[in-house]
Amino acid sequence: MPAPGPKNLITDVAGLRVGQVEDHALRSGVTVVLCDEPAVAGFEVMGGAPGTRETDLLHPHNMVETVNAIVLSGGSAYGLDAASGTQAWLREQGIGLSVRGHIVPIVPAAILFDLVNGGDKDWGRYPPYREMGYEAASRAGLDFALGTAGAGTGALSAGLKGGLGSASLRLASGITIGALAAVNPAGSVTVGQTRHFLAAPFEIGDEFGGLGLPLPFPPDAATPRWKWQDPASAGANTTIAIIATDAKLTKPEAKRLAIAAHDGFARAIWPAHSPVDGDLVFALATGTSGITPDHSAAMDIYAHAAATMARAIARGVYEARAVEGDLLPAWGERG
Amino acid sequence: MPAPGPKNLITDVAGLRVGQVEDHALRSGVTVVLCDEPAVAGFEVMGGAPGTRETDLLHPHNMVETVNAIVLSGGSAYGLDAASGTQAWLREQGIGLSVRGHIVPIVPAAILFDLVNGGDKDWGRYPPYREMGYEAASRAGLDFALGTAGAGTGALSAGLKGGLGSASLRLASGITIGALAAVNPAGSVTVGQTRHFLAAPFEIGDEFGGLGLPLPFPPDAATPRWKWQDPASAGANTTIAIIATDAKLTKPEAKRLAIAAHDGFARAIWPAHSPVDGDLVFALATGTSGITPDHSAAMDIYAHAAATMARAIARGVYEARAVEGDLLPAWGERG
Repeated sequence: MPAPGPKNLITDVAGLRVGQVEDHALRSGVTVVLCDEPAVAGFEVMGGAPGTRETDLLHPHNMVETVNAIVLSGGSAYGLDAASGTQAWLREQGIGLSVRGHIVPIVPAAILFDLVNGGDKDWGRYPPYREMGYEAASRAGLDFALGTAGAGTGALSAGLKGGLGSASLRLASGITIGALAAVNPAGSVTVGQTRHFLAAPFEIGDEFGGLGLPLPFPPDAATPRWKWQDPASAGANTTIAIIATDAKLTKPEAKRLAIAAHDGFARAIWPAHSPVDGDLVFALATGTSGITPDHSAAMDIYAHAAATMARAIARGVYEARAVEGDLLPAWGERG
Repeated sequence: MPAPGPKNLITDVAGLRVGQVEDHALRSGVTVVLCDEPAVAGFEVMGGAPGTRETDLLHPHNMVETVNAIVLSGGSAYGLDAASGTQAWLREQGIGLSVRGHIVPIVPAAILFDLVNGGDKDWGRYPPYREMGYEAASRAGLDFALGTAGAGTGALSAGLKGGLGSASLRLASGITIGALAAVNPAGSVTVGQTRHFLAAPFEIGDEFGGLGLPLPFPPDAATPRWKWQDPASAGANTTIAIIATDAKLTKPEAKRLAIAAHDGFARAIWPAHSPVDGDLVFALATGTSGITPDHSAAMDIYAHAAATMARAIARGVYEARAVEGDLLPAWGERG
């Protein structure tokens, strides 16, 4: 059976580092994934309310094949400024696409909505995300906090605090898969009214509590549970995520990796992919394993990517911790 | 709790009829959904190997808003001819888009691969799907067979025969949702090596056997199971489906309905949406309920659409019956 990498984090994929910043007064934050070398990238949006930057270049038919970093941020559309800060930091290191002697760091970004926590007050003219994006990049390393951290700081799900999650998996082939998710969905990550995670069939060990599926299985498991009483108008949502591998993939394969990882959303969140979620997955292939998968091996990567994403989502909620003034309870303090 | 409509079929959505043809020597067939009045339509492809006709016009930004029928067929790319037959039948009835006095029936179509059963032999120059598409349209009514029928006749899944499934759901609002699926995935519809359907949390009554989830939940539930030993090269696959509602939806909303229904694939098939599946959902909104959902009501339609699709997929495999020469056992004869 495949097992997690040593950290059970996306940084088990060699060539990636993660940096984060939180502002607990703002109840928001930024998570940056830095690529030591440019990584082949793709993306797929399945939510109806995305907030993004530099995604068009990721289409398989467009020219740029690799990126230098990916930024996930709170702050709704204001949080897209975080990519500017990461871009500035990369430029200072001399990292980026070289275009006629000029360095242009390629930094796709996506945001989630957490303004309802109070994140849109006392800014002055400009929001603080640009500086947070710089700071997060400068802190990047192999270890980082889960739960109420980075882009997951202000995240909420139906009935429970959301958070930042990550997980990894090492396949028998030697290929490693890693997932990172800022979990802020309109739907629920647990089965019905229980504390049991929907993603339980994919859990390895007790990485998100080890409760398994509920017994008996509740009859209301199929009933949609929404974060807000009036789900469409009272606030916004979004799960934004990164799926990464050290396999050598083409740009179209990175797109398929992103599509496949969305099935991890469907297996970890109910309902997922709604019109008021901006659900998005970025895919990164660092190639650091040196392994070019054949078609069958690629199919197994995609399937395990969905499972790893489901685990990362559950871990994000599982690791959230209570902070004074929370709108919703953290998983650890409930039930 | 919402309950199925009187037939638990897609034809519980008023304004739709279904006709089917099977050729048991060919081990293939055609399923046609006819719209009594032109229905607003959309689609979403998530598999890597689709086979389609008349999908480009379904994009929300393109002109034609409604369709007259949708065709699902076996026969791989040859099966796209089935739409020609349905088109011919509609033209004879005077049904279609009127363009400067000419009748042009709009008939999107998708196919699945079932040639491995023997479906590509003894045709002569042209395959038989065009005539099957005509015949299926001429037989359309409110009742139709599930399992080894229509486009599901030659369908296979990992370890079990596939088939044609359908299900419906009536919401408290009075809106009805219906799903139809020809289930031929590379992955499995049951949990691990068990006979328990992945879609069990959504089952209503014992519509697909009433086994619930397996106890204990098997540790290999996350292990990908593929139909073919060499999953990428030894054959092809695809689940093609239609999600329908009698709500009044816009064309962009029909697109979201199709996207949402793909989560039903993710909840009923593991792995789903692979590079060798042409997984596709068409969405139809007949508007016959007269109800225009607000945003919150639309979100509930989308969520229940995913659940209804998961049920239709499980029912397709559950209803499959054994036929001499089968490559895989039918669910009912296994275990």
